[in-house]
Amino acid sequence: MTPAAAAERSDAARNRERLLLAARDLIEEGGVAALTMDRLAERAGVGKGTVFRRFGSRAGLMLTLLDDSEAAFQARFLFGPPPLGPGAPPLDRLLAFGAERIAYVVEYGDLVLAAGHAARGRFEVPAVALWNRHVEMLLREAGFRSPEPWLMAGSLTATLDPERLLHLIRQHGVTTERLAVSWRDLVTRVVMAT
Amino acid sequence: MTPAAAAERSDAARNRERLLLAARDLIEEGGVAALTMDRLAERAGVGKGTVFRRFGSRAGLMLTLLDDSEAAFQARFLFGPPPLGPGAPPLDRLLAFGAERIAYVVEYGDLVLAAGHAARGRFEVPAVALWNRHVEMLLREAGFRSPEPWLMAGSLTATLDPERLLHLIRQHGVTTERLAVSWRDLVTRVVMAT
Repeated sequence: MTPAAAAERSDAARNRERLLLAARDLIEEGGVAALTMDRLAERAGVGKGTVFRRFGSRAGLMLTLLDDSEAAFQARFLFGPPPLGPGAPPLDRLLAFGAERIAYVVEYGDLVLAAGHAARGRFEVPAVALWNRHVEMLLREAGFRSPEPWLMAGSLTATLDPERLLHLIRQHGVTTERLAVSWRDLVTRVVMAT
Repeated sequence: MTPAAAAERSDAARNRERLLLAARDLIEEGGVAALTMDRLAERAGVGKGTVFRRFGSRAGLMLTLLDDSEAAFQARFLFGPPPLGPGAPPLDRLLAFGAERIAYVVEYGDLVLAAGHAARGRFEVPAVALWNRHVEMLLREAGFRSPEPWLMAGSLTATLDPERLLHLIRQHGVTTERLAVSWRDLVTRVVMAT
């Protein structure tokens, strides 16, 4: 890459970061409904055309925000500090994984629903396959002996389905604490019965 | 009800049964794609208008077929013979419940997908609430001690989500036997760790 091309690329990356930060600010202030392409352009101090070129549509913007938070979550469970990241006992990592997913759904729930991310094809998403493998690896490390650790990992991650968790929280008033306790109970029983 | 009204109502019920039987025949012969309103009218020997008056649309017909199979499944786990119905030990009933759900998804999977039944609002469906209570009751009977049996029942039934099972079967080539074994492993661990 020429120095000029490198500078241009780094400008683009900075612009993207500035737009995403502005988008998160808008959501924090007024919820997902407050995030429109117009307001985002205004807040980030760029033209509306720039916002559309960058994200395509409001749904594209939502997906980018989700991808971004998903990537941050992945980095934390793959490389971050324990107990979520490496270094803690596998059962502790499993418990942290569920607790963090539940917190994530509470934080990004509206985004998940708005992006339609959780609807059709939600089992095709690479992120889901990665969680599945991660949970499978931790089950094995925890001494889980069964002919089907991959299927068991899939069953466990299925209980963290965002739409399901949001339904429990919003329609049934279940607290995130109760959800985390239930996850702990489920995972502990599965691992301990080994 | 007058005798005339009663006769009319019973005629309507018979017509409905005849249409549903014809619809199931068509699906059995050529899959869900083979079930069109035209072919259904022809097969059942009624006018197309009758089919539309009865079901509203093809999607309405799919939902009716599903409701009908769901009602039959409910009758079996609530009142049918053991091990699915009353009379068997609770763990056996739980295992039969999962095995039958998996078989149901294999049989009605295309219908589930075609009706969009499993998409949005799938946690609002009364059937899901009923399964949840049923599994909760069996967990309690099996001696499951936990502050959250209802949440645990919800987690277990979430692993039987039709879209999830169909994805495993169709995209990953997982057999129904392996799914049933995995359900057995999960439920046994949850109950035995009590």
